[in-house]
Amino acid sequence: MRVLVIGGNGFIGSRLMLALRDRGDSVIVVDRFPARTDVDWHEVRYLQADFHDHDVLDEVLPGVQQVYHSASCTVPSTADADPVLDIQGNLLGTHALLAAMRRHGVRRICYFSSGGTVYGNPQAIPVAESHPLAPISSYGIVKVAVERYLGMFQRQGWLDPVVVRPSNPYGPGQAVDGAQGAVAVFLGRALTGQGVQVWGDGETVRDYIFIDDLIRLTLLAADSACGAAFNAGSGVGTSLNDLCDRVRRGTGQALVAEYREGRAFDVRAIVLDVSRAWRELGWAPKVDIDTGIQLTWQALITT
Amino acid sequence: MRVLVIGGNGFIGSRLMLALRDRGDSVIVVDRFPARTDVDWHEVRYLQADFHDHDVLDEVLPGVQQVYHSASCTVPSTADADPVLDIQGNLLGTHALLAAMRRHGVRRICYFSSGGTVYGNPQAIPVAESHPLAPISSYGIVKVAVERYLGMFQRQGWLDPVVVRPSNPYGPGQAVDGAQGAVAVFLGRALTGQGVQVWGDGETVRDYIFIDDLIRLTLLAADSACGAAFNAGSGVGTSLNDLCDRVRRGTGQALVAEYREGRAFDVRAIVLDVSRAWRELGWAPKVDIDTGIQLTWQALITT
Repeated sequence: MRVLVIGGNGFIGSRLMLALRDRGDSVIVVDRFPARTDVDWHEVRYLQADFHDHDVLDEVLPGVQQVYHSASCTVPSTADADPVLDIQGNLLGTHALLAAMRRHGVRRICYFSSGGTVYGNPQAIPVAESHPLAPISSYGIVKVAVERYLGMFQRQGWLDPVVVRPSNPYGPGQAVDGAQGAVAVFLGRALTGQGVQVWGDGETVRDYIFIDDLIRLTLLAADSACGAAFNAGSGVGTSLNDLCDRVRRGTGQALVAEYREGRAFDVRAIVLDVSRAWRELGWAPKVDIDTGIQLTWQALITT
Repeated sequence: MRVLVIGGNGFIGSRLMLALRDRGDSVIVVDRFPARTDVDWHEVRYLQADFHDHDVLDEVLPGVQQVYHSASCTVPSTADADPVLDIQGNLLGTHALLAAMRRHGVRRICYFSSGGTVYGNPQAIPVAESHPLAPISSYGIVKVAVERYLGMFQRQGWLDPVVVRPSNPYGPGQAVDGAQGAVAVFLGRALTGQGVQVWGDGETVRDYIFIDDLIRLTLLAADSACGAAFNAGSGVGTSLNDLCDRVRRGTGQALVAEYREGRAFDVRAIVLDVSRAWRELGWAPKVDIDTGIQLTWQALITT
């Protein structure tokens, strides 16, 4: 079938593009950056454009059966520094995308929300999808607003949304010098023999999900008739200090941690309850953190 | 003290302006409409302007100690019809206001949110402030987003917000031909002998608060050191059918109800738990619905 991947040049988007292309879909990618050179774009139509560009959307949407929306013009730190940009680019931008889908009668959208920010500081962990959405950062506020609008348009009867809330995805293809992705950044530093900066005391707990597990869940969710939100995590919490140790053991490299002051927009601990995806989609994560570190490390040292 | 009332020409804003002026404050009003002629603007500085106009804000904010923000460019029905306008006018507009406050070191803002929409369809009634914020309408989605940003800026340490979540305010001064305000609309129809349109089966339950009770709570909240959100309702639920009966009894007029299809953005029943305002501010509503209808009716027939 014909599918559109918004943000298909990103870490998640590019892996998703590959999975869709390889299963035989006709894939169109819209991304504001030039196509990355480390993946094979064979048979994929690539448009470098803003995803909220009406003309581009009107050109690519006819005949599309599924839209995957993984674009964001912010990460948590830049969103908090400039909430107006976050709202304009991500909230209003997504409205433009949804309005274009409506014009063309395209109903199915799989939206990448954020398991790490929509719940705020969870009342208990692991946190299920039914937990109140109580974001404390601009990134999370905007993600929640988009989710609410998706639900509203679903009730209005013209949209079939499904939401994936990834925790912290990692794996081959993630930028080692990016603003997100502790596993990739740590491995990149291990490769070059540099130390890492850790915000806070290193006991911040996150739920790292291997990219292949996330992509598998995404396809199952989009292909299902489900209209719910799905947590996409490993279900296991790992502190930054623990992650450092695992990277040291997995790579055999020294990795010196330098501690910096904590950031206001970081929640203390987040681990996702992923049992809904098991119950409704038969999905469970397959790659544990040590295996995932190995797979990512091997990809890194052979490129 | 010097205070700024954003939206001071509206129903809530104009009554708030009067209360502030009459207690001796130096009041500045910014409103996009020309000043209404049914209230006394003596000693009040009135600027007809958009509240997100940087130049206007830079002119009026110096020396201001409290900002009351009661402006909205939408009501629930218009917000749902044009969510982009809702986001641009109310969410981005409020960001412009807050940024201007930050520039001028003005810390205290009393924001009028919405007790009727921020909770969505409540899990149980009466609904307390701690209930999850799960809006189902654009109006509620934007109000919740603003509340979240207020909390974020409070944690960043440069803003002292307090939030008032009114249910359905009514009383003298409310437009009888407006898009909001069942009591005023019903009384206006009773006055002219017309019937009323009721959305749904008339069993939609709302919590009507008399305007004087709302203003009293607002001043207590703004003058307190509280940073929380306060429900502002009567704590009593009244169905539209019941309201019709009370208006008939209170006015002695026939009031024929015409039933129309329900609206997707209306929650079924909402009654606010107002005990937090009692505990923290010593506030309780004083005017019951029949008394309030009488006071509003008397004002209506003598103008």
